[in-house]
Amino acid sequence: MLARVQIDRLLITTLPNVTWLTGFEASAAAVLVRPHQCVLLTDGRYREAAIEIAERCAGLITVVPVEDTYEETIVRLIADEGSAVGFEAGSMTVARLNWLTTTLRHTGSPTVLSPTMTAVEACRIVKDDWEIDILRDAAQRLSAVAIGVIADFRPGIAERDVAQGIEAGLRRAGFSRPAFDTIVASGPRAALPHGRASDRVIQPGEVVVLDFGGVYGGYCVDLTRTVACGDPGSEAREWYDSVLAAQSAAIAAVRPGRPAADVDLAARTVLEQRGLGPLFTHGTGHGLGLEVHEAPRVGRPRRESGRDPMPGTVLLPEDLDAGMILTVEPGVYVPGRGGVRIEDDVLVTASGVEVLTNVPRTLVID
Amino acid sequence: MLARVQIDRLLITTLPNVTWLTGFEASAAAVLVRPHQCVLLTDGRYREAAIEIAERCAGLITVVPVEDTYEETIVRLIADEGSAVGFEAGSMTVARLNWLTTTLRHTGSPTVLSPTMTAVEACRIVKDDWEIDILRDAAQRLSAVAIGVIADFRPGIAERDVAQGIEAGLRRAGFSRPAFDTIVASGPRAALPHGRASDRVIQPGEVVVLDFGGVYGGYCVDLTRTVACGDPGSEAREWYDSVLAAQSAAIAAVRPGRPAADVDLAARTVLEQRGLGPLFTHGTGHGLGLEVHEAPRVGRPRRESGRDPMPGTVLLPEDLDAGMILTVEPGVYVPGRGGVRIEDDVLVTASGVEVLTNVPRTLVID
Repeated sequence: MLARVQIDRLLITTLPNVTWLTGFEASAAAVLVRPHQCVLLTDGRYREAAIEIAERCAGLITVVPVEDTYEETIVRLIADEGSAVGFEAGSMTVARLNWLTTTLRHTGSPTVLSPTMTAVEACRIVKDDWEIDILRDAAQRLSAVAIGVIADFRPGIAERDVAQGIEAGLRRAGFSRPAFDTIVASGPRAALPHGRASDRVIQPGEVVVLDFGGVYGGYCVDLTRTVACGDPGSEAREWYDSVLAAQSAAIAAVRPGRPAADVDLAARTVLEQRGLGPLFTHGTGHGLGLEVHEAPRVGRPRRESGRDPMPGTVLLPEDLDAGMILTVEPGVYVPGRGGVRIEDDVLVTASGVEVLTNVPRTLVID
Repeated sequence: MLARVQIDRLLITTLPNVTWLTGFEASAAAVLVRPHQCVLLTDGRYREAAIEIAERCAGLITVVPVEDTYEETIVRLIADEGSAVGFEAGSMTVARLNWLTTTLRHTGSPTVLSPTMTAVEACRIVKDDWEIDILRDAAQRLSAVAIGVIADFRPGIAERDVAQGIEAGLRRAGFSRPAFDTIVASGPRAALPHGRASDRVIQPGEVVVLDFGGVYGGYCVDLTRTVACGDPGSEAREWYDSVLAAQSAAIAAVRPGRPAADVDLAARTVLEQRGLGPLFTHGTGHGLGLEVHEAPRVGRPRRESGRDPMPGTVLLPEDLDAGMILTVEPGVYVPGRGGVRIEDDVLVTASGVEVLTNVPRTLVID
């Protein structure tokens, strides 16, 4: 990783990157990566947990306690490195960099902070077997939660109560927490792609988008089903059939070596052919891992800016590769009327695709 | 607010600041504040919700849709401002600023981006009556959840199941989500100030730290109680009595015009007098509002760096003022053995303090 950014010291301040490198999970931490050692910085609240991690990785991880502030501890640690130290420009704030560089200069340190981009993210994008096992297990657990929620689903209750049932199910299934705010969007609210559960009471025949995820062993999975109890009408059925066709086409486009943008194009083409293109207002998916939204990006190809990336950037691959895990979740949203989204989590395999989630894709339920 | 940073355009990219300014809540958004207008940028997922907000604030908020990326939309929006545009250096990343400035230069724009710090946070620190009403209501609801959880509490169940009960209670009480990962830390795990609920089964007589919070109407409240079913032993009782005395002293120190650091000092002094000072490894509290950790800082006074703050900084007050809402949560942590923390939420009033949470502070429960 250090070789990819051509630098031999790297200051990691993005929390999921800290976790990926060290296994340590906290709301505040940093890592200084040196050629044969990781220095883990954390404060009193997490000291015991950090020491436990370091003991398991004898010699590879050293814990440095943060006594005052993270910034002061970082300066003390890197002031004598005597060479360039890379930092993560994608998460380092302008204010923090300003403080660190000014303080290093004041102390007469020869250390220079040098920007890097997506060096660790480029490593995280392909999951190893250990990570795939966790994510496969998590996806199965999430599917079981979804099946239970749909079996219990009935009109006459508030979106918020459905969300409560989902989150209780996540806990029972071993998830440590929801991966994001649970979405339960019914009737016209289904037109809001991110309609958090409200007090609205679900009516018979209404289309309801259920989108939820959980964190299991630190890793995130994510699933959406759209359901209706009773007949939702022909318009909603058409939306559903179209989104289902779009999702199937997108999943069929998942294959190593193929651009991730092709997955988006496959879904978009189906919806455009049915005149629903303008109603599909987001990308087709995103990577899953320690973050619920991570690389690869599964959307329209970015326009070329014609400019070089920032120095120190490790480019993220644009093609799919075996070991990547992503969501496939096209949707259609009709303001004021309703919407449909269907989402599954898939693994790119050596030969194509494995769908990790397994929940019937049926609009009308009993 | 613009006057405080002596600038007439301000680009807001910190999400809670976007919410505070516009009432709009989303996982991605930005605001350009102009002298008589806010421009709200958001993408397709949130378009409907943004338009609804703008209609309620006719004329004051204009919605600009993000078609490609936020960065490209920001550049299009500010390229013709023809004057300095402030940005939030505390949340703007180095990479994003680099992209924005490079792109503005490439397009020949005269706009210059100029750093600001805590301009909106300085406004958010004192709550208005509308916010106080929400937070007071939220604290009462949280207290009711805590009372219910403690009444149902019994040994022989796993920490994770206790957490599930807490989170179901939060939903039932009207909270949209937990404000942070629910902490249930029993026995020796109580020594971890941030011990997330695990599979550990709670034993009779063990000390258990329950720390949880909820988001209600967008605002965060936070509460900790430490309980034991059965006799936890004399050592734990001593810790508890000391932490209770420290918390009472800290609450008594809350008064407008007094340094927030005095609240920390009051708690710390009690624990030091009892020889427990080194076991109190964090600050005494933090502000509450749209974020679960916000200003004011309630910890030891910062050492003076002797350097001027970054240009464009609006200094956050160090003294308490009527309308501030904060947690008071001293604790004692004994590695390998256990710990105690007691936390309430308080409002600084014109004459002193109002404790917003109301849950018995009793270690041993039936």
